Amino acid sequence: MVTSNVSKTAGSLVSQWTFAGRALELESSVIRDILKVTSQPEVISFAGGLPAPELFPIEGLKKACQKVLEEIGPPALQYSLTTGVPPLRRYLAGRVSKQGFEVDEANIQVTAGSQQGLDLVGRLFLEPGSVVITEIPTYLGAIQAFNFYGAKYVSVDMDENGVLIDQLEDKVRASKPRIIYIVPNFQNPSGITLAEERRHQLVEIAKRYQVPIIEDNPYGELRYAGKEVSSIQSIGGDYVIQLQTFSKIISPGLRIGWISASKEIMALVERVKQATDLHTNTFCQYVITEFAKDGSLDRHIEELKVAYSERRQVMLDAMQEHFPEEVKWTKPEGGLFLWVELPRGMNSAQLLDKAVEKKVAYVPGSPFYAQTIGENTMRLNFSNASPEKIVEGIRRLGQVFKENLPKKS
Amino acid sequence: MVTSNVSKTAGSLVSQWTFAGRALELESSVIRDILKVTSQPEVISFAGGLPAPELFPIEGLKKACQKVLEEIGPPALQYSLTTGVPPLRRYLAGRVSKQGFEVDEANIQVTAGSQQGLDLVGRLFLEPGSVVITEIPTYLGAIQAFNFYGAKYVSVDMDENGVLIDQLEDKVRASKPRIIYIVPNFQNPSGITLAEERRHQLVEIAKRYQVPIIEDNPYGELRYAGKEVSSIQSIGGDYVIQLQTFSKIISPGLRIGWISASKEIMALVERVKQATDLHTNTFCQYVITEFAKDGSLDRHIEELKVAYSERRQVMLDAMQEHFPEEVKWTKPEGGLFLWVELPRGMNSAQLLDKAVEKKVAYVPGSPFYAQTIGENTMRLNFSNASPEKIVEGIRRLGQVFKENLPKKS
Repeated sequence: MVTSNVSKTAGSLVSQWTFAGRALELESSVIRDILKVTSQPEVISFAGGLPAPELFPIEGLKKACQKVLEEIGPPALQYSLTTGVPPLRRYLAGRVSKQGFEVDEANIQVTAGSQQGLDLVGRLFLEPGSVVITEIPTYLGAIQAFNFYGAKYVSVDMDENGVLIDQLEDKVRASKPRIIYIVPNFQNPSGITLAEERRHQLVEIAKRYQVPIIEDNPYGELRYAGKEVSSIQSIGGDYVIQLQTFSKIISPGLRIGWISASKEIMALVERVKQATDLHTNTFCQYVITEFAKDGSLDRHIEELKVAYSERRQVMLDAMQEHFPEEVKWTKPEGGLFLWVELPRGMNSAQLLDKAVEKKVAYVPGSPFYAQTIGENTMRLNFSNASPEKIVEGIRRLGQVFKENLPKKS
Repeated sequence: MVTSNVSKTAGSLVSQWTFAGRALELESSVIRDILKVTSQPEVISFAGGLPAPELFPIEGLKKACQKVLEEIGPPALQYSLTTGVPPLRRYLAGRVSKQGFEVDEANIQVTAGSQQGLDLVGRLFLEPGSVVITEIPTYLGAIQAFNFYGAKYVSVDMDENGVLIDQLEDKVRASKPRIIYIVPNFQNPSGITLAEERRHQLVEIAKRYQVPIIEDNPYGELRYAGKEVSSIQSIGGDYVIQLQTFSKIISPGLRIGWISASKEIMALVERVKQATDLHTNTFCQYVITEFAKDGSLDRHIEELKVAYSERRQVMLDAMQEHFPEEVKWTKPEGGLFLWVELPRGMNSAQLLDKAVEKKVAYVPGSPFYAQTIGENTMRLNFSNASPEKIVEGIRRLGQVFKENLPKKS
């Protein structure tokens, strides 16, 4: 039987065959590994970045599936354009234009979620040793995508208003980056939003040093407090390549995102996308177009905002009540995450075992830093658990913190 | 307004910014470009590789969508495992095992169609200058995927039984390839099937020279004539990485394919896949699982085989009737394509204009060759057009050939 052969030879085949060096260096996502540990059903997990499953628009999608198969029929199941199906691209052009950057469908590339957007950006711009400017902390999925292309990172510190612009300019000048990678709204992991004035300054730097800005914007539509700010693309136009996704506002399982940029860049993006997977799922592109039309998506987003806004407030209130006063945290105006800072000397990665013993989980902060700092930080998600579970989870976490505070000297 | 700014600066941005060298070298698919020319509604096109749209199982998929949303619900719309959803992987493990290579779900990676499978193989094995052994002619999508990683090609001639094994061994010995890339069943573009005995010899070469075989098998289930042959994976086990897809047997628009290989290779494949797009569309994976179960997919494939077998025969008969006797063609036992060879001195690319004038189209053969040969060849697809259109299209094509035969000296 062939299978017995398998186990005998397999290990040695991996050592006999020659692989691409960089493919072997890739690390599995730390978060995905942690999720395996923390996914026991009794654990209240703030570790993932999952949307609330009970808010998925199942009825709306069911109707959309029927309608697409009945009214569009075979073309919804056939090969389609690499750039994306035209009705969806027209719809997306309308959404991007509302931000203030007037575009048409030729400025839109549909992607298999934002992660593919990041991979395509990497394909297009990065070669071994290419410098990427990032915020610190920054989004891990981007690091994972860019690592494959051999990127080097130059990180810029943040305060409560986002990246420090002077430091960013110094580092752009010194490091000659290929791209500036920014998550400007309710950043994953910190929850921080880049202030309006700094967005204008950022665009000036991009123009001065001729570096494109990659605006990664998965959460921009999920604002629960504070004032709207302009998208960087609406300020910087062609100097910006914006990535967005339906993952947080409809469903991540459909894997539909989009890139908006100048038509010249789009021609290059189309070419790298074609070699990767020909095109994105035709059927789900039509289903989303059908579901979203006539303002339905906007109404659904309003419902999400009501629910997530409550969860955010519940978490902030519970932290106020249960966390020791030495612990600090961000108060994000939107998105899915907030960021906790423990007193120096505490190590959130070591503490995770004790938290899981008490049936509560989070993601330690240090993987979000390129350097080995941030040991005393962690990311908490507030979109996935119910308000009741959030309160109970934060109570448990507060207990873990109190029992492990460093001794006062 | 930002848009006026766009057109002024865009061209210069592309020249100001620094891109990855290889991304700029990528060519758009010749076939996709030809399809744009030949997609006028009056043209009878044998150029594409499209399944027959009227055979898509719309009713079955409609029921499957409903059932998945009602019975599985939110998990069908949520983030899911990078390897693929477990019920689909179990189902696929069963299908692969029936070929004679006993596997379980841990041997299966779900991909966004076979094109992503090719891209992941490229990511895993290829670096600039890595040699890939291919058949000649070979599948263009593979070349496009591997080009990004800087592959060099060493091509092996074929006869009516597939690649010439002695020549292949000589070239493997001389060129130290990273992978041997083979489309063994009803090859795209030639329609040729690799003979059983040669498959065994090929596996011996892979073992002797320690090179993995990439068995690209999108058409294997669509056999209309002749005797079943063993999959290369069922002969070579762990020495083979097999790519398959639902594109030709359910729908290409759903973009669901799969890789089967040893568990050790799977761990590496999962890692490169994760950085690319996190995971494949969750919803469509469940929909296909639901649609395929209880033998429904096998019954659907039987229906496809009846229809495509008829079209193939109609095309062969019409060619016999309408093509001049100087023209030769393959008689594929399955798949979607056959291969035509005109007398030397005729140029199928130049002839395409005259064919399109007569409202019939095909793909010239030379792009399928790595070198500049094959000018007198072409690929014809027989799955997409109705039998009536096939007869009319072949009649028109026969006229074009007769009017352009080289003068007898």
